[in-house]
Amino acid sequence: MVCIFVTGGTFDKTYDEIRGGLAFADTHLPEMLRLGRSRIEVTIRTLMMVDSLDMTDANRELIVHNCRQCAQSRIVITHGTDTMVETAHALAQGLTGKTVVLTGAMIPYAFGSSDGLFNLGSALSFAQVLPAGVYIAMNGQHFEWDKVRKNKETGVFESL
Amino acid sequence: MVCIFVTGGTFDKTYDEIRGGLAFADTHLPEMLRLGRSRIEVTIRTLMMVDSLDMTDANRELIVHNCRQCAQSRIVITHGTDTMVETAHALAQGLTGKTVVLTGAMIPYAFGSSDGLFNLGSALSFAQVLPAGVYIAMNGQHFEWDKVRKNKETGVFESL
Amino acid sequence: MVCIFVTGGTFDKTYDEIRGGLAFADTHLPEMLRLGRSRIEVTIRTLMMVDSLDMTDANRELIVHNCRQCAQSRIVITHGTDTMVETAHALAQGLTGKTVVLTGAMIPYAFGSSDGLFNLGSALSFAQVLPAGVYIAMNGQHFEWDKVRKNKETGVFESL
Amino acid sequence: MVCIFVTGGTFDKTYDEIRGGLAFADTHLPEMLRLGRSRIEVTIRTLMMVDSLDMTDANRELIVHNCRQCAQSRIVITHGTDTMVETAHALAQGLTGKTVVLTGAMIPYAFGSSDGLFNLGSALSFAQVLPAGVYIAMNGQHFEWDKVRKNKETGVFESL
Repeated sequence: MVCIFVTGGTFDKTYDEIRGGLAFADTHLPEMLRLGRSRIEVTIRTLMMVDSLDMTDANRELIVHNCRQCAQSRIVITHGTDTMVETAHALAQGLTGKTVVLTGAMIPYAFGSSDGLFNLGSALSFAQVLPAGVYIAMNGQHFEWDKVRKNKETGVFESL
Repeated sequence: MVCIFVTGGTFDKTYDEIRGGLAFADTHLPEMLRLGRSRIEVTIRTLMMVDSLDMTDANRELIVHNCRQCAQSRIVITHGTDTMVETAHALAQGLTGKTVVLTGAMIPYAFGSSDGLFNLGSALSFAQVLPAGVYIAMNGQHFEWDKVRKNKETGVFESL
Repeated sequence: MVCIFVTGGTFDKTYDEIRGGLAFADTHLPEMLRLGRSRIEVTIRTLMMVDSLDMTDANRELIVHNCRQCAQSRIVITHGTDTMVETAHALAQGLTGKTVVLTGAMIPYAFGSSDGLFNLGSALSFAQVLPAGVYIAMNGQHFEWDKVRKNKETGVFESL
Repeated sequence: MVCIFVTGGTFDKTYDEIRGGLAFADTHLPEMLRLGRSRIEVTIRTLMMVDSLDMTDANRELIVHNCRQCAQSRIVITHGTDTMVETAHALAQGLTGKTVVLTGAMIPYAFGSSDGLFNLGSALSFAQVLPAGVYIAMNGQHFEWDKVRKNKETGVFESL
């Protein structure tokens, strides 16, 4: 049993036809799990729908709080990549005894060519087998929360 | 570093426009890894391109042989789902000390709606962290080789 | 107002996960029109769901009969490409005073990489503006029924 | 032979992974024609890559000029939907004796769920058979330049 928290990010950005720009509507998580024919028992809860550049301390507290409260010890969080590392730090400081895996996407799932489905399969798998701790899963790799940074120029997560 | 062996299966079936049916051409693995923006170091080798119902003992010996020979201790095999469990058995009997994860798809990747990308992200992740042994990774789940069967009616892998 | 008749063909082939092969289920026409945001008033009727190599004289009579009966004078028929020309001949002999456009696809719509959506947009457009007659619309082109053949080797429709 | 002019618009918007927003890169036209297996002889020329809300009088003059200069009498223009009608007016005033069809998309082609491929098939078909004049082709329909407006609330083109 895995608990999935949705916080927004590129992962869930969609195209607003009327306004002609990117926007958030509902999360694509249930559709993605159906497409992947996932048979992992999950609960999905949308905590917020924000670009991670707009994520506040209050948002991060809410995420930590929900990770603490949820009955499961295995958690996946979808999150914008720009401040994913900051949220991982907040979780590492506020939480013990659970396996939390943050993941995201470089391209919105609603675009045909997204890395989101690959990352979701990866994050859910890491979440099921890694020991307690806070991790980032991107590009098929996993990193401990304090050993990773996002390279803003290449858009890639790198080991520290 | 993960070694990927391609053996065919639904995963890599494509549509032959001239004949109007399903067929095998080249593997989609490199394209899928590019789409998933995978940064795992991999070597990809196509051992065969067969429907798993047509897989022979000689084919399975070749798979075991290649898993033994390859320099890496972490291996992913793409395989048709119908006889994936048989190949897992052959690997468990012929190989020790390596983590081998078999995966496949219910829908060809070339179809827009494939579970293949999700399964590939999942299999590569399990292969990096599970202890030595032979596993099947499907639907976001993983099973030890001797504790799983494919339910032919539902098309789903189940725990024994 | 355009009348659309569905007869099967590659256009509507889908992948049967349990049997592991191609099959027909429901037509994808309504989904395709939604995706194309079509605002043409249409009625859609599935007459049969067959590979055009299996199409019989009785099937063709049924198609001609329905084209005669329908209230509209503008008709699109989705059809397998292999015998599309034969059906166009049957229509030309059995029908007058209506604009009938046959179209199909080289790749099933259910595959991500289909030509079906392009062909559907094309066929519906030709059907609205061409004078009465029987036409084949493929690859963005249109051909009168007696001036076209399918090249079996290249899979392409060519002018006679 | 059809001449295609690319001017930007939603049709060709793409997702910039590094900046995390929408942007223009190269046109998707050649890829779309390949996907549609188009066999229409075309020349493609990118005149500009702008959001149609940013299109200036100078941009419109350039479009009219190119339509006048091109050797073909059948022309398709891809264009943002917001000011497509204005450009149609400029063309109607500056050009005679050619069939010009403007088209666009409500969703970028780079998103899996685009109406662009349907509209492109439609516009190319109308361009081949309509008499000289300036038209807008959207949603499978065609409108003469002076008998159409875009409903800003619904995003839909309507007859005047």
